[in-house]
Amino acid sequence: MMRQVVCARCVKCGREYEAVPTVTTCACGGILDIVYDYDYIRSVCSPAQLDESRELSMWRYRPFLPVEDASAPPPLRVGWSPLYRADRLAGELGLKTLWIKDDGQNPTASLKDRASAMAVVKAKEAGADTIACSSTGNAASSLAGNAAAAGFSTYIFVPSRAPKGKVAQLRIFGATVISVDGSYEDTFELSRAAIDRWGWYNRNAAINPFLSEGKKTVSLEIAQQLNWQVPDYVAVSVGDGCTIAGVWKGFCDLHAAGFISRLPRLIAVQAEGCCPLNRAIQTGEPWQPMEENTLADSIAVGVPRNPDKALSAIRQSNGVAVNVSDEEILAAMRLLGRTQGVFGEPAGVTGTAGVKKAVELGLIDKNASVVSLVTGNGLKDVASGIKAAGEPMLVKPYMDALLDAFAQNGICPG
Amino acid sequence: MMRQVVCARCVKCGREYEAVPTVTTCACGGILDIVYDYDYIRSVCSPAQLDESRELSMWRYRPFLPVEDASAPPPLRVGWSPLYRADRLAGELGLKTLWIKDDGQNPTASLKDRASAMAVVKAKEAGADTIACSSTGNAASSLAGNAAAAGFSTYIFVPSRAPKGKVAQLRIFGATVISVDGSYEDTFELSRAAIDRWGWYNRNAAINPFLSEGKKTVSLEIAQQLNWQVPDYVAVSVGDGCTIAGVWKGFCDLHAAGFISRLPRLIAVQAEGCCPLNRAIQTGEPWQPMEENTLADSIAVGVPRNPDKALSAIRQSNGVAVNVSDEEILAAMRLLGRTQGVFGEPAGVTGTAGVKKAVELGLIDKNASVVSLVTGNGLKDVASGIKAAGEPMLVKPYMDALLDAFAQNGICPG
Repeated sequence: MMRQVVCARCVKCGREYEAVPTVTTCACGGILDIVYDYDYIRSVCSPAQLDESRELSMWRYRPFLPVEDASAPPPLRVGWSPLYRADRLAGELGLKTLWIKDDGQNPTASLKDRASAMAVVKAKEAGADTIACSSTGNAASSLAGNAAAAGFSTYIFVPSRAPKGKVAQLRIFGATVISVDGSYEDTFELSRAAIDRWGWYNRNAAINPFLSEGKKTVSLEIAQQLNWQVPDYVAVSVGDGCTIAGVWKGFCDLHAAGFISRLPRLIAVQAEGCCPLNRAIQTGEPWQPMEENTLADSIAVGVPRNPDKALSAIRQSNGVAVNVSDEEILAAMRLLGRTQGVFGEPAGVTGTAGVKKAVELGLIDKNASVVSLVTGNGLKDVASGIKAAGEPMLVKPYMDALLDAFAQNGICPG
Repeated sequence: MMRQVVCARCVKCGREYEAVPTVTTCACGGILDIVYDYDYIRSVCSPAQLDESRELSMWRYRPFLPVEDASAPPPLRVGWSPLYRADRLAGELGLKTLWIKDDGQNPTASLKDRASAMAVVKAKEAGADTIACSSTGNAASSLAGNAAAAGFSTYIFVPSRAPKGKVAQLRIFGATVISVDGSYEDTFELSRAAIDRWGWYNRNAAINPFLSEGKKTVSLEIAQQLNWQVPDYVAVSVGDGCTIAGVWKGFCDLHAAGFISRLPRLIAVQAEGCCPLNRAIQTGEPWQPMEENTLADSIAVGVPRNPDKALSAIRQSNGVAVNVSDEEILAAMRLLGRTQGVFGEPAGVTGTAGVKKAVELGLIDKNASVVSLVTGNGLKDVASGIKAAGEPMLVKPYMDALLDAFAQNGICPG
């Protein structure tokens, strides 16, 4: 029973499907969106009830989630990540009010755990024993971890450029890992062919409509952590488009249910070297594939798999599209670390790099309130961390050597 | 005001000191222990009150912590990490009841955040603006992160062998990092000399008596998460000795306050190549320095800095000392990942490796209930993760290549 769910509806042609666990895309090729009965949700849930919840995970939002009443939550504790008031960082950016939502604090250290936890529940409802996906890395490692904890086998396709940290996670979690010598596009197509061939449960976010429903819980948390007050802007890095679509769906659901009184504007941030969706927003033209020229591997997606949902989210929200350079991304890694003690991976801090740039370009008002979403932990990509911040000074174990090193590096410890 | 605190008492000679924020070690060289007024604690706190707490961090235990009433908690959300019931892992070990406490789910991804959060509060009480420490890596990165979030400068000394992930964290958090070309012992001595010279606030856990009070919160959480029922055993990896001392202090405090009715036995786990404390337990002789021959860098401590507290904790608890090989540590990384979706660093899983070995050796009863503490995240040391689990198969982006690779690797996806 899922009384809260009406159906799965194609975002392109509007055709409706029963929201069974194995539903994928529309016959027309469009991606499906889960449609809710908000009157029913209101009848079983209220902001006050949620404020009483002791469930320290995304599963506190079950009335808003497309899972069967009988389904148990999966083992790992996903979600309810901290929302930090970032006054020192706001000061440096010249912004009045800034919060950092640190979704690197999830079990496998990225926001993708929210989608993978949902995939595990839906795979169980479907009676599957094996789950597969392709991913730039984080969806992969989150699926591997969440599936391992729940006893599923996994087949996971990653491009061979995926950072070592993410690959190490996959291997440790016992996944069968196929490192594809090609682009993310190549990787996705090979995974699709293999899933068709062997009938594994499909955790590709742009095909399985339930996954963005997991991701949307980040917005439900932001709203609740701000006492149901909505910020003026929410900044999100954009690759495939599934995350920003999920973020928008979360706010739309809360608004439709009457839990919040307005919607935020999205700040969609892409890397200059790979910004097909932002380019479409900025030019008003249909999106075109791009090369994948950025060190922010998680959003190096030249052929986004969820362009329709992403573009309509940005447009519906009257959003702002900002592109940032790799240098600006590395600078944002240092900035978040130094001022807030938050270490994000390159794609994880791209949203914050975009906030900085949007303020500098006058795209957003300095008196606005902004939530910047950090989508993944910097420990996943240590090479980029070192690239951003440099190696430490190496010193022989003597005070004289230390004094010399301080002098050479211009450090006055007194 | 700290009405809950009586004094700081030397564990060697019993001399008592006022528990001011800058108190360090006793004139006799002994390490101090914070002494509480348990009647007072009982008058302001109860298990039922703690069960009502909505503070999702270690600071829910303020009545048990040596901080001034007026001190605000520091910015990062430290503690209240998940305790997972690990039935599948228990089954593989032949153990009846096992829980995994995943302290890799802390802001900088290790248990050390608990001590560093405490250091930040005490440094502020002391009016300091700079904090320093030496560390094998995790205390360092946790201090750097927690201090950055609170606006402190940090000077941090690590041995040059520290894994890249930990060093990257330090640099990103803006710490002044001194990578010492020598052993942990060399590193500690250089940091001590520098702290003496420049008067920085000292976050060396074996000198500053407040830090194990931060660490003890992990035990308060375990007890509360088990509804104030105490497991038969708690397994902890041991390096410097500060963590196991903190773990024991937590249970002792709860017992003295009447919140729990018995104490657990500790399972102290060290690496075979560096086990000075366990050797002392096993032989009954005083501890002797050892070389630092293990890949578990966080516990590669040949000259433990807190032997007195650690040895007395193990002995008082009627504990079990177990040493494990590096191979057994790598196997435990795979085992925790595959069965529970938990990725720990080598020292982080050493406790679990010890549980496995203790069961095999018949040192603990298979019907016992065990909590195994995972002290740090595997993403901190990706090289060891790859060493444990191997590289993935590399495949050209064609179905034929995939079929070949499956055949070569003996994988039957059907």
